Formats: sequence, C-alpha cells, structure tokens
Amino acid sequence: MLTVTEARNQILQQARSFGAETILLSESFDRILAEDVCADRDYPPFNRSAMDGYALKFNDIDRYKEFRLVGEMLAGEGIKSLKEEGTCIKIMTGAPVPEGADLVIRVEDSELKDGMVKFKSYPSRCWQNIAIRGEDAKSGEKVLQKSTIINASTSGLLASLGKNLVSVYSLPKVAIISTGNEIKSAGDIVLPHQIRDSNSYTIASFFQHYYIDIVSRQLVSDRKVDIKNVIKSLDEVDILILSGGVSMGDADFVPEVLSDCGVKEVFHKVQIKPGKPLWFGVRDNKTVVFALPGNPVSCQVAFKVFIEPFLRACFGLSPCQTIKLPLAGNRKKKSSFEEYFPCALGPFGSQTGLLPIKNNGSGDFTSVTRSFGLAMQPAEIEELKEGDFVEFIPWKGI
Amino acid sequence: MLTVTEARNQILQQARSFGAETILLSESFDRILAEDVCADRDYPPFNRSAMDGYALKFNDIDRYKEFRLVGEMLAGEGIKSLKEEGTCIKIMTGAPVPEGADLVIRVEDSELKDGMVKFKSYPSRCWQNIAIRGEDAKSGEKVLQKSTIINASTSGLLASLGKNLVSVYSLPKVAIISTGNEIKSAGDIVLPHQIRDSNSYTIASFFQHYYIDIVSRQLVSDRKVDIKNVIKSLDEVDILILSGGVSMGDADFVPEVLSDCGVKEVFHKVQIKPGKPLWFGVRDNKTVVFALPGNPVSCQVAFKVFIEPFLRACFGLSPCQTIKLPLAGNRKKKSSFEEYFPCALGPFGSQTGLLPIKNNGSGDFTSVTRSFGLAMQPAEIEELKEGDFVEFIPWKGI
Repeated sequence: MLTVTEARNQILQQARSFGAETILLSESFDRILAEDVCADRDYPPFNRSAMDGYALKFNDIDRYKEFRLVGEMLAGEGIKSLKEEGTCIKIMTGAPVPEGADLVIRVEDSELKDGMVKFKSYPSRCWQNIAIRGEDAKSGEKVLQKSTIINASTSGLLASLGKNLVSVYSLPKVAIISTGNEIKSAGDIVLPHQIRDSNSYTIASFFQHYYIDIVSRQLVSDRKVDIKNVIKSLDEVDILILSGGVSMGDADFVPEVLSDCGVKEVFHKVQIKPGKPLWFGVRDNKTVVFALPGNPVSCQVAFKVFIEPFLRACFGLSPCQTIKLPLAGNRKKKSSFEEYFPCALGPFGSQTGLLPIKNNGSGDFTSVTRSFGLAMQPAEIEELKEGDFVEFIPWKGI
Repeated sequence: MLTVTEARNQILQQARSFGAETILLSESFDRILAEDVCADRDYPPFNRSAMDGYALKFNDIDRYKEFRLVGEMLAGEGIKSLKEEGTCIKIMTGAPVPEGADLVIRVEDSELKDGMVKFKSYPSRCWQNIAIRGEDAKSGEKVLQKSTIINASTSGLLASLGKNLVSVYSLPKVAIISTGNEIKSAGDIVLPHQIRDSNSYTIASFFQHYYIDIVSRQLVSDRKVDIKNVIKSLDEVDILILSGGVSMGDADFVPEVLSDCGVKEVFHKVQIKPGKPLWFGVRDNKTVVFALPGNPVSCQVAFKVFIEPFLRACFGLSPCQTIKLPLAGNRKKKSSFEEYFPCALGPFGSQTGLLPIKNNGSGDFTSVTRSFGLAMQPAEIEELKEGDFVEFIPWKGI
C-alpha cells in the first residue's frame, strides 16, 4: 500500500494544463495567470511627489534663503518644468515632479508669504520625498509570473499595468458521481434506511474556490450496469470524482467497473486515515479519476491531500501553503498511517494553537463544520504532545 | 484622532442586516446562513454498521459457539430484523443494523463454513462497531446556527439534512468611485503624467470573497461638481467606497463634497499607518461611506482593518480569524500609530514565521502581491524583535 507521499507523487505525474483563455480583468478574480506580465512603461511613470509640499532644485538650497513660487502642480496635470534658479513649484502628493526639480520639501516645513517660500529645515540629499521614475519597475521588466493567483493586490497591479484583458488558465471539466443504493438527493424524501448525498456538495464547494463549476452531478445505485453507463457518458471530462463503493464490501463495485470502462488503475488504497480506500486511475491520458470513500470526512481529507494538489499542479501552482502551529493537547495515533484530524484555531499561550475538534468517529457530520482545517500527524510519530508543532492545512487555503 | 479600535467600533455601530433570501443549496457556497438549522430526524437515522461484518445479539455470544447465517443487509435496503436466537446477518458498512441485533463483529474476525459463522474473538460490550441512531444529533436538535459561512463541510451537512433550499443573508449593493484627475481606466491609453485606476479592482476582488458583485464602478475627476453628481446618482447603494481625495492636498475635496451630499461624517483620520486619511460617514442611516486614501496599499489595509469587519458584522460574523505567528526579523516603528505591514509565510525554526515583504514605500505596487496577508504592530510597541508573536490577518481570510 502506498504512503501518502508516494500516492500524491503518482497523482502529480498526471498533472497537465487545461489550456488558456483571455478574459476581462474584472472577471478574473481568483483565476490563475497563464502569462508572464511585464511593465508596459516605467513605474512610477514619472518622478512622483510623495508629499504635499514644494518642488525645487537641491543645488539651490545653499544659495537662496527664500524661493519665489512660480506655479502649482496637481496630480493629473501635464509635467511642468522648473527652469529658473531660486524658484519653487507647489506640488501635491502623487503629482509629477517638474522637470529640473529634484527635491520636495513638505508643506509642514514651509512658510509662504507674499509669493515667497521659506523653509524651516532642509534635507541633506536630493530626491527626498520623491518616488523616482522606474524605481518600482523598469519598462519591460517582468513584474508577474505566470501561475500567479489573481488576488486583490494582483488584480490591482494588473490594472495599473493596463492589463484590461488577461490570459488565464482554462478550468477543467469536473464531474461528480455519488454511488450507493442508500443515497438520495438533498431535495428528495428519504425513507428511514436511506440517507442523503452530501459529498457532491462538499466536493463542488471545494472546486468553487477555484471558480470551477461542476459540469455533471449524478447519483447512481450500486448496480454495476448503472455505474458503468454513467461513467461511459462522461468521457469528455477532465476530472471525474466518485464517492462511495471503493471499500471491500459486497456492493463495492467501483474499482471493477472503472477498469471495465477503460480507466487504468494507478493505485488503490493509501496509508492514510481517514481515507484509506482511495482509488486513482486515468483514462486515455485525459480523464483522471478519483474514487473516494463515501464517508464525508474522508472525502474532505482526500480533496485537501490529493485532489487539490493535483488541481494546483495543473495550474502550475505549488500545493496549498500550510502553517506549522502548536497543538493544544495530546494526541495518540490509532493507526500506523499518516493521520489527518480537523482542528479549530484558538489562543495557546501567547500564540495561536490548534484545537482538535471532538469527533465521535469519521462519520460524524456536525463536528467538522466547527473546524478551520486539517492537522496532520505523520505516520512515524506515535504520539503528539501539547505544544508540538504540527502542520495545518486551512480548508480555504491561505 | 481616533485609534484603530475606536474607529472600528464606530464603524461597527453602523452594521445592519441587508435582509435574507432563500436560494438553492448548490448556489449557496460561501454565502452566510440566515436561519438556525435543526436536524429533521435523528442522525444517524438508524443504527448504522461501521464495519463490514456480521450483526448478532450480544446476549447470544455466551450461549452459542457458532451462528446460523440467515441473510445479508446491504446499505440502501429496508431495515430487516433478527428474531431467532443463535443467528446472524451479514452486514455492510453503512447499512442499517437489523432490529434485534446490538453487535457487529468484523468480517476479518470471522469464519464462514456451510452457512454457519464462527468468531475468533468477541467484544466485551454490546453496540460495538455500531453508530447508534441519534448519536450525532437528535431530531429537532439545532445543528447549525445562523451566521455560519456555508463552506465545504457546512454545505455537505445541509445536504445531509435535506436543506435543498437555504435562507442566506442578502448581499449589500456596493459601489466604488475612484477619484483623481490623473486616473484613467485600465483599458485606456495613458499619457506620461497619468496613471491607471487599480484600487477599484482590488476592492472589487476583496468583495468577491463574499460573492458580492459591485453594482457601479466609476472614475471621476477631482472637480467638486463631478464628484457630487456621481455620489448623488448612487443613493440606493448600501456601501459606497471612494478612493483618493481625502488627504490635505489642494484637490482633496472628497470630505467636503460628501458633506454637501448629505453624508454625515462619523470620523476623518485614524491613528493607523498606512491609511491615516480614512474618512467614514453615513447617509440617511442607509448608505455607509468609506473614503479611502488613493494609495493602493492603504486601500488594502483599510479593507482588511475596517471594511471587512463591518461587512462581517452585517452578516452576524465576528471579524476574520487572525493567527499569532513569530516574526522572522526585527521591526522598528516609523510612527506612533498602529502599523500594518505585508508579510509572506515561511519556515522559522520548527514553526511557520512571518517574513516581512521588502517594500520601498506605501506606493510600491509589486511587493504586496508576494505577501499572504498583513501583520500588525501595536501603537505602543516601539520595536518588534525576531521571534515575537505578531497578529497576522491573511488576505483571503481563514
């Protein structure tokens, strides 16, 4: 049976791009850049005043006691020039420093009387209070690499650079199949022995973090022929997720049916708890298939530990950032596997610690909603002690 | 001038709900629940087998050496009953335990021969390997409170409960106005002294985290009459964000124009760096107005420190979860204010630490894109030393 790392490496080998497309910047939030982006001009594009004050020539300050005010420079006005010695121009924050000027002195350090400005103190060097043209980026310089997530600051930067249209990676077609004779849809009436499908909502919600809509969501019985027909109808999808039917029970036909449908098994079962029965395969080097255990917590663990790293690799992103935080409590392992357990965050001394969520078994569906993510206990560490630093994967990512 | 805490408290006093609406669960990801949700029946709804094995009566195990196999129970079948003493029923994980049975023994601990089952070992108590009806939640018990974010596990739980339709808080109408004679749109040609609007993209992207689309995004010059006309046209919005024009420059007319438009000033300026010139006001107890400094980093800080806590309070949510992490480096404060600085995350000994992003001034637009969030240096702490625990606010939330 593969370890978690071995299984994930086999999955990552199947990562491939889903292509790229050009969209409006205003529709690109949380999409992933598919192009390197270079500065279209110098940034700042002009010597920009960082203060409200007066622009003058540094060389003048030893030679003049007061300066004749010859104009005002507001942001948005064409760049003026300061030609005459012994003169100054009033300037606003963000406005271009006039040509010929190489110093801005703050309005607080000045006194204006009868058109003449005196300064209370002088700086010791030129270019004080000026952001110099090109100091943030030179024209043509690469400022964003492809495979950057377009978050709030990135979208602002792209707008600054005039990237009204951006090339982003296309999104995969994802389908979800929930299997099980006992499974009904959330909107259906259930009999006492039936339960409702929850995993397809959970998985769909995770994909939504990447703005991926699910192209097909289906419930299917445990009958082989039903499962087969549904899988065959989905030969155009990039990622197929099944939940249920992968254990060793008498109705667990999913691995067999997937093989019958031409999906080549890469592995079945991983040394992970919860989630051991995970099945992974590939069809025609196109569709990757994750068959997850039916249990809701196992599904969530499988998404964060296997599916999301795969998805990110397809976009050229590294796995989600994890955070090492101290564990508030002890924890003994129940298996010889790598174990994942939901945690909330809370005060732990002067730090933030991981508070394991009370959980009465992997089928318990209420406790996980109170957690912020998963903590990981490595296979070789039998017991975690209070204060040990533990790797934490936030549900939302960070 | 107000402290950050005072300013935020004044803002939070204006928080109000934007109403509620009922939507499909499948469209509710990341929306906020506007109703308490109770269990529609017991969970689990039946005594559920946690293993593949055999269901029998605990009282029988001292009186019989082997058990006659009288049937099989798959998940999804109607609940059977086990009447006769000395018999057992084969059962699959997730299937309902037959009435009369109170024990499941794992298939691994059994031997089946000629229709008779022998067990290698017996448990010491009844209900072993069974999730008892109602142990997760009793029918009618509250399992989710209103003001819960519908994340992956919550949407799964709601589906389990049959909540195909959910009541969620309605979203506010938000408008953004970028002011400044120097500002052009991202798609426009810029002259050397002009720059492009970036703040409206940044702010829109932050609101998108809450699935809030911006109803109006406009650029306007620094002319009073232009600003006034735009503000007057937006009297139906719940949240109005302006950027630029709030400092003390000669073209900074925003506070004056807002007052002229009937927006009552609550405060102007906060002891925060960057972002001191923040202006906040309210019109007709309906529209709250945040006028932010034009500088991009200040805008981002203002969103995370003031606007997002307001938005969350309107939904009944507490402010974003912060994480206390050790600082990798020293930091001297430049002001007497509460200071915020962008940080990346990285290894720091056996922990995860905050790596301050090199930043050549608050107008630097490339450095912030490499950060994961904001760290905060309290007003009264002059100097942070390497390893000090510092409050960290992830851009995305956690």
